[in-house]
Amino acid sequence: MDVVELTRALIACNSVTPARGAVFDVLEAALVPLGFSIDRFVSGEAPDGPVENLIAVRDRGGTHLAFAGHVDVVPAGEGWSASPWGGTVRDGAVIGRGAVDMKGAVAAFVAACADVPEHGTLSLLITGDEEGPATYGTPALIDRMAATGVRPNLCLVGEPTCVSRIGDTVKIGRRGSVNIWVEVAGRQGHVAYPHLADNPVTRLVAILAEVDALVLDRGNAWFQPSNIEATDLHVGNPAHNVIPGRASARLSIRFNDEQRGDDLIALIRSVAHRHAPDAVVTGRVSGEAFLTEPGRLSALVSGAIHDRTGIVPELSTTGGTSDARFLSRLCPTVEFGLVNATMHQVDEAASTGDLRLLTDIYAGIVSRALA
Amino acid sequence: MDVVELTRALIACNSVTPARGAVFDVLEAALVPLGFSIDRFVSGEAPDGPVENLIAVRDRGGTHLAFAGHVDVVPAGEGWSASPWGGTVRDGAVIGRGAVDMKGAVAAFVAACADVPEHGTLSLLITGDEEGPATYGTPALIDRMAATGVRPNLCLVGEPTCVSRIGDTVKIGRRGSVNIWVEVAGRQGHVAYPHLADNPVTRLVAILAEVDALVLDRGNAWFQPSNIEATDLHVGNPAHNVIPGRASARLSIRFNDEQRGDDLIALIRSVAHRHAPDAVVTGRVSGEAFLTEPGRLSALVSGAIHDRTGIVPELSTTGGTSDARFLSRLCPTVEFGLVNATMHQVDEAASTGDLRLLTDIYAGIVSRALA
Repeated sequence: MDVVELTRALIACNSVTPARGAVFDVLEAALVPLGFSIDRFVSGEAPDGPVENLIAVRDRGGTHLAFAGHVDVVPAGEGWSASPWGGTVRDGAVIGRGAVDMKGAVAAFVAACADVPEHGTLSLLITGDEEGPATYGTPALIDRMAATGVRPNLCLVGEPTCVSRIGDTVKIGRRGSVNIWVEVAGRQGHVAYPHLADNPVTRLVAILAEVDALVLDRGNAWFQPSNIEATDLHVGNPAHNVIPGRASARLSIRFNDEQRGDDLIALIRSVAHRHAPDAVVTGRVSGEAFLTEPGRLSALVSGAIHDRTGIVPELSTTGGTSDARFLSRLCPTVEFGLVNATMHQVDEAASTGDLRLLTDIYAGIVSRALA
Repeated sequence: MDVVELTRALIACNSVTPARGAVFDVLEAALVPLGFSIDRFVSGEAPDGPVENLIAVRDRGGTHLAFAGHVDVVPAGEGWSASPWGGTVRDGAVIGRGAVDMKGAVAAFVAACADVPEHGTLSLLITGDEEGPATYGTPALIDRMAATGVRPNLCLVGEPTCVSRIGDTVKIGRRGSVNIWVEVAGRQGHVAYPHLADNPVTRLVAILAEVDALVLDRGNAWFQPSNIEATDLHVGNPAHNVIPGRASARLSIRFNDEQRGDDLIALIRSVAHRHAPDAVVTGRVSGEAFLTEPGRLSALVSGAIHDRTGIVPELSTTGGTSDARFLSRLCPTVEFGLVNATMHQVDEAASTGDLRLLTDIYAGIVSRALA
């Protein structure tokens, strides 16, 4: 089982999100000879579905380590120096959409499974929609696992976490994200007669000034402080001498594990209602924060990395959201994968040396986890 | 000289701003027999010109009372029950665009001049552009007066000041008006990495919160406090996860005679620069405040009103700007004219009784001023 060849075979299947069919066929064909049972299923309807997902399990009892990832990719875009679906190897690197994010890591995990003794239980939880709305991606996988009794004890998500070299960064958590819209209605009128009007801009500014002064938390050992940004303002009043009737703002909050999205929406609503009792505040939680506090899982991942590279990885919680936010509800979950420098870019590429090193590290993680 | 017939003759000349030609011919033909010398001239180029103006003087030495006004009108619009240019008399009122604002008052002043003894000096300062940009309206009249040695001691502007009946309101001042644009540039970035960005919305909100808290003044015996309204906000950022690069606001300030427009622009600029050193703050002063403190002029106007109506008029400074802001630099200036209920509206109309009463009051003002 050669990690480079499997990466190339996965890249050769154009699987712009949502992925179905061929890319899963390649993966299934690689896993069956290794003793995995395969459960492929399609979930959801338009617009967010249908989405194909795959659960592969090699059940030998004992501790159960799950590897989670995705085989869908973002669109290629223009300007590649080699076909994004060609899997060209040039200057010691595999070029192709998904090489880094994250077909290379999926291939490395499969290759690692071929290298380790068959004791303990291994599974792969692979979705066809991580890059899209993800409604029927990992959440559907988790539902399926509950229905079929797949219950991992530890989970490793293979997202590209490394910054400059393999082993430098393990993510043990991610911040949550929520967008909030604040709409304030006032009473339109002439600026010469402000007592007959009710300026919604004045109320909105008071709301936003109080929001800007909020200290949600001071961060903690593993997270930066939660942070609020106002990302848009809108009035749309062309008349210089008219007090407008409506004003609105949009906020984006990235928050740590001391907050919950719905609580933050309620907090902003309470601030808004102090200044504008009729303000309409709506929110959408993109993801809750999660943290797997350093412990057995991070220790064995760090140990496997140090064995092969001599690096003590940074345990980080920075960056955007990932599917680890769902999986972390099942069991301790960390993320570790390739160097993310070229992810989502033109000429996305993973060095063959990195792919082999990642395979070795994954094998080391499996050995330690299932020992 | 019948005020109703002269009003109808002026209305019959469609003189949507800027006015030129026929409406001035009618006015000149009425004034010449009364002993006035006429100076008609055209000023300016496109887009704000050319504009016709008229200075009529009957110089008999002594005190010089000027009557100021305009013969241009706003467009008629749709839905009139009689032709806006017909001067129809129905139910005791002259219907037509400009009946109230302010051909009726111009006619009343001419008719008053026919009724008073010829001692003292009278003038009419009539512009063809009060309703438009006014660049070449009253300012051009004032330049012409300086060049030709027309120097009034007292000035009465015939704008429709009355609210419900002739005599209830004399304006002795007007607030000033300035619009100010505040543009804040920041540094765009991803909301997940706010330390790499500089959110201009945060700075703009801080500016506007400080502006909202400003107390420019507490008003005085003749004016309400100066007032600031934020009338527009703009960011225009469709991306939920992006900190925008620019944010802007527009302010409108209506201010009393304790402020000056340029000082207010400088004040807002200084507030803005405290929170955003690179903020670009631009302003446009539509008009400075003016006040003719109660004294000889307001006393003789009030006296003439009381003689004819028994009403003690309110001396007011409310409402928008008027050309009195320019004329008040020359000499004490007040405004008094018809009931403004229908001005700028469909079926604008002045009652014939009001036109005759206004003529009587104007004659009383002339007699008292030139006695």
